[in-house]
Amino acid sequence: MTPLELFAVEGLPEVRPGDDLGDLICSHTKLETADVLVIAQKVVSKSEGRLRELAGVEASDEAKRIAPQLVAVPDPRFVQVVLDESVRVLRSQRVLITETHHGFVCANSGVDQSNVAEPGMVTLLPIDPDASARGIRQRIRDRCGVDVGVIVSDTFGRPWRLGIVNVALGVAGLPGLIDLRGTPDDAGREMHATVLAIADDLASAAGVVMGKTERSPVVVIRGLDLIGDGSGRDLIRPAAEDVFR
Amino acid sequence: MTPLELFAVEGLPEVRPGDDLGDLICSHTKLETADVLVIAQKVVSKSEGRLRELAGVEASDEAKRIAPQLVAVPDPRFVQVVLDESVRVLRSQRVLITETHHGFVCANSGVDQSNVAEPGMVTLLPIDPDASARGIRQRIRDRCGVDVGVIVSDTFGRPWRLGIVNVALGVAGLPGLIDLRGTPDDAGREMHATVLAIADDLASAAGVVMGKTERSPVVVIRGLDLIGDGSGRDLIRPAAEDVFR
Repeated sequence: MTPLELFAVEGLPEVRPGDDLGDLICSHTKLETADVLVIAQKVVSKSEGRLRELAGVEASDEAKRIAPQLVAVPDPRFVQVVLDESVRVLRSQRVLITETHHGFVCANSGVDQSNVAEPGMVTLLPIDPDASARGIRQRIRDRCGVDVGVIVSDTFGRPWRLGIVNVALGVAGLPGLIDLRGTPDDAGREMHATVLAIADDLASAAGVVMGKTERSPVVVIRGLDLIGDGSGRDLIRPAAEDVFR
Repeated sequence: MTPLELFAVEGLPEVRPGDDLGDLICSHTKLETADVLVIAQKVVSKSEGRLRELAGVEASDEAKRIAPQLVAVPDPRFVQVVLDESVRVLRSQRVLITETHHGFVCANSGVDQSNVAEPGMVTLLPIDPDASARGIRQRIRDRCGVDVGVIVSDTFGRPWRLGIVNVALGVAGLPGLIDLRGTPDDAGREMHATVLAIADDLASAAGVVMGKTERSPVVVIRGLDLIGDGSGRDLIRPAAEDVFR
């Protein structure tokens, strides 16, 4: 089997609203058909202008009540932005865990103040990360004529385990899940409950290369044969099936 | 930056109790210093004889009560083995989520019937996956004179997200977490709450290569510079800090 290869796209400039990410990526690396690009949500959000200035936010009573309960005691206006991006609050003691309008369950609705060049600005998750991934994929096909898979990723914490891992929010051109149910295992028995979250495993793999402060927001994974038609939505467990929601 | 390379160790035989995994790996691939080996728990458990035969198990009333509540309606003796491996049951409706004696929260205490050659046998998690990782690391150093990192991995489901991902149960020779708190982000601001679960990201990366039925239980990750002294225990969120336990 050929090895899987992962490398960062180097030399990308600081991304600003309106920047064409597909174009930037094409001009900084030579892509091959079936490469999978994992792109950090933050640069996607910046290119899409998904930024908010705290100065223009008025904190509600709820935001003012929640802020002092949290470990980092954030600005209540930051909490307000988090609430604006959420449909439901799961926990608001010590950490603020919400369900976003997409259905992601994560800390602070994915709203983030780190690695934003302008002080007082926060980044929001893309409105539709699958559409973001599809758009970048299409742009790369138009611009450099190769069919790639695209994952828009972010780092999430997890219950029960420490530390954050990279996960897939948006997916285009590859499957989100690989369903092995009904296929026999090595001993010929049917495998139960074996649905691989392949897009999350790939996002995590890229997370190793991205580091966190290294400014490598785009990672290429080469050597896969994973063409497919999945979405990041495939990876969201429906609330009705979720025993922990 | 040199690319990260991942490949499976090919041609390994079916592993049996008493097999020397370090020796098997050394004789099937040429390792380099600082390689990280990710080894599926199942072959570690098999080599350590962590198997149980359902025929010798007597199901308790609790196991008989739980079994019909689960989606797959398992053999109550299987449920009994799961209970024997657990210190606490978190959910027993539709799925059986337990806390193992190690502190892992996962389905069925990690007990598994798939990919076991002998019918009626199940695999249990290693008693001490960190000790397993350390033992294999030591054996590889003795046998082929290279210092590698070792991760013993298993696939876990997650709340809120569908599909399983590979995670690190045991770690030796590399860090489990990388703590970036207090280091500045790209804009010079202190980063809060940024502890990377690097061993989990690496396990996930290997999960892409392992597939599930491909019989590639050992994956080599090359190109890292991650020497360290971590453990799988580092990745377990203490129950007292866990807002979802």
